[in-house]
Amino acid sequence: MNVLVTSVGRRVKLLHYFVREWGDTGKIIAVDCDPTAPALYAAHCHEQVPRIDDPGYLDALLQICQQYEIKAILSLIDPELTLLAAHADRFYMQGIEVIVSSRDVIEMCLDKMATHDFLSAHQIPAIPTFTKMDEVQAALLAGQITYPLIVKPRYGSASLGITRVENDQECSVVMEKTDDVVIQPFLQAEEYGVDGYVDLISGELVTLFTRKKLRMRAGETDRSLAVKDPRLLSLAKELIHVLEPRGPIDIDCFLVGDQYVVSEINPRFGGGYPHAHESGVNIVRALLQNIKGLVNQPKVGEYKEGSIMMKYDEVMLLE
Amino acid sequence: MNVLVTSVGRRVKLLHYFVREWGDTGKIIAVDCDPTAPALYAAHCHEQVPRIDDPGYLDALLQICQQYEIKAILSLIDPELTLLAAHADRFYMQGIEVIVSSRDVIEMCLDKMATHDFLSAHQIPAIPTFTKMDEVQAALLAGQITYPLIVKPRYGSASLGITRVENDQECSVVMEKTDDVVIQPFLQAEEYGVDGYVDLISGELVTLFTRKKLRMRAGETDRSLAVKDPRLLSLAKELIHVLEPRGPIDIDCFLVGDQYVVSEINPRFGGGYPHAHESGVNIVRALLQNIKGLVNQPKVGEYKEGSIMMKYDEVMLLE
Repeated sequence: MNVLVTSVGRRVKLLHYFVREWGDTGKIIAVDCDPTAPALYAAHCHEQVPRIDDPGYLDALLQICQQYEIKAILSLIDPELTLLAAHADRFYMQGIEVIVSSRDVIEMCLDKMATHDFLSAHQIPAIPTFTKMDEVQAALLAGQITYPLIVKPRYGSASLGITRVENDQECSVVMEKTDDVVIQPFLQAEEYGVDGYVDLISGELVTLFTRKKLRMRAGETDRSLAVKDPRLLSLAKELIHVLEPRGPIDIDCFLVGDQYVVSEINPRFGGGYPHAHESGVNIVRALLQNIKGLVNQPKVGEYKEGSIMMKYDEVMLLE
Repeated sequence: MNVLVTSVGRRVKLLHYFVREWGDTGKIIAVDCDPTAPALYAAHCHEQVPRIDDPGYLDALLQICQQYEIKAILSLIDPELTLLAAHADRFYMQGIEVIVSSRDVIEMCLDKMATHDFLSAHQIPAIPTFTKMDEVQAALLAGQITYPLIVKPRYGSASLGITRVENDQECSVVMEKTDDVVIQPFLQAEEYGVDGYVDLISGELVTLFTRKKLRMRAGETDRSLAVKDPRLLSLAKELIHVLEPRGPIDIDCFLVGDQYVVSEINPRFGGGYPHAHESGVNIVRALLQNIKGLVNQPKVGEYKEGSIMMKYDEVMLLE
């Protein structure tokens, strides 16, 4: 029952949870291209691998899977999800479960325009999103949006490369400088995060945890408050119902006026997951049950609201 | 022997070191204006206080000092150092030691132009620094600097509000938008950090630890390598000799070509201090000795080079 966790980076806490939950049922093997990735040292065993864009990367993973008799594999970063989904067959042929949503789901979630279109098609509140200046101008004229707007990369992580623009001229300049951007209104709104798990066997939603983001740091939630708003829980349920992801999922929302709006979907363990885990919403255990071949019983919303999670720096010395 | 540590923020690890070193010699009291500052919960006792710019702040501190029979006080953030230095008399009158350098030293360190002038006056390598566009143009003409340059706030923390400019026009635009900026060359150079402690009683340098910064995150060192380059150690010694700070000090340097250049001086515990501490360079213990009235014996450079410090997120739940 050994499990390979890839691109582990700084996710030490998550690896600790895996090691603790696995107990004596198996080993957790961690890999990363950077030997100074601290989460490597939180696993039972670790290996350094090439970068995920290296042509030899997949072979390196498959070899490690053989070496450690790996039963299941999962990645903690978005760009690698596509790779694992695209090559899931090679792992399945070795008898290895790939903990990943379908390729369609992953590609849609990585693309902010496609995410908007999917949400709109299913009547789920989304952030107005545009890729062309003339669409932006039409939406401005129609009073659908107003400046300031934000321009950000269409693909990739939300916290990188975001530019705020105040008028048409600034917007055009930023758009000319960069390919593949989306334009959205700049929302002065509270942000929320949702952690969920969809059973790999039954396809049913097993657990959900919602939190209000109190403070961000380096693009991640630094402090959050556990909340239990029925509107947010049903929005997340509705989205997961139509999306049909598999395994862990992280959803970002804004509260605009009195309506929750979905801003981003990450079909993997989110950076704010420790709040859910420390509150008893144990997605790592649900995953272990599935790898054991057991179906999880749904326990959606079984947690206490009101707790505040605070992150701080711990240090590890490599000598 | 109770000690008050103010503006503790996220410095949980440092507070843990204090609590561990103090053992049963006294209590560590932590204060912050934000009740979700995680380091509050790492101390023996904690209190919430007004913001440091609140007119009632100093009285609140003095009252807490009385309540907890505080023997010494220190702050972990730059803007508060000035305040403590300016009002040190009020604490001394209550028999409380203020762990802070002189007001002159603190004000100079907060001002990037004054820091440059001080370093230059003492023949210590500094980063070329300008406040006026015509000086910049003269330096460009003289071949002393070249674009790209960076424009950053003259006062305050180095990692905030930095803009890279590519030509005269961009530079002028940025300078017009913001008051009180300095202009420096954009250095593509390795960064180093120095942690030191100057005995409060003897005024002698007690300990020094130097590290190469391998990776930054949210303006702080995320990974670093312990180094022991005699050139860097003697630069730091020379600087401390002429500066005459008191207590903990953190110095930032760049390696430009084969010369170390001082970029910033922070007369307080730096964010990368855990690497020094975990390597046995125990500045917290040196401070405790001084508060006990004992002089520290110098042990400058007594540590092993080659260790890598990696930070990662730990979490704490407030229920």
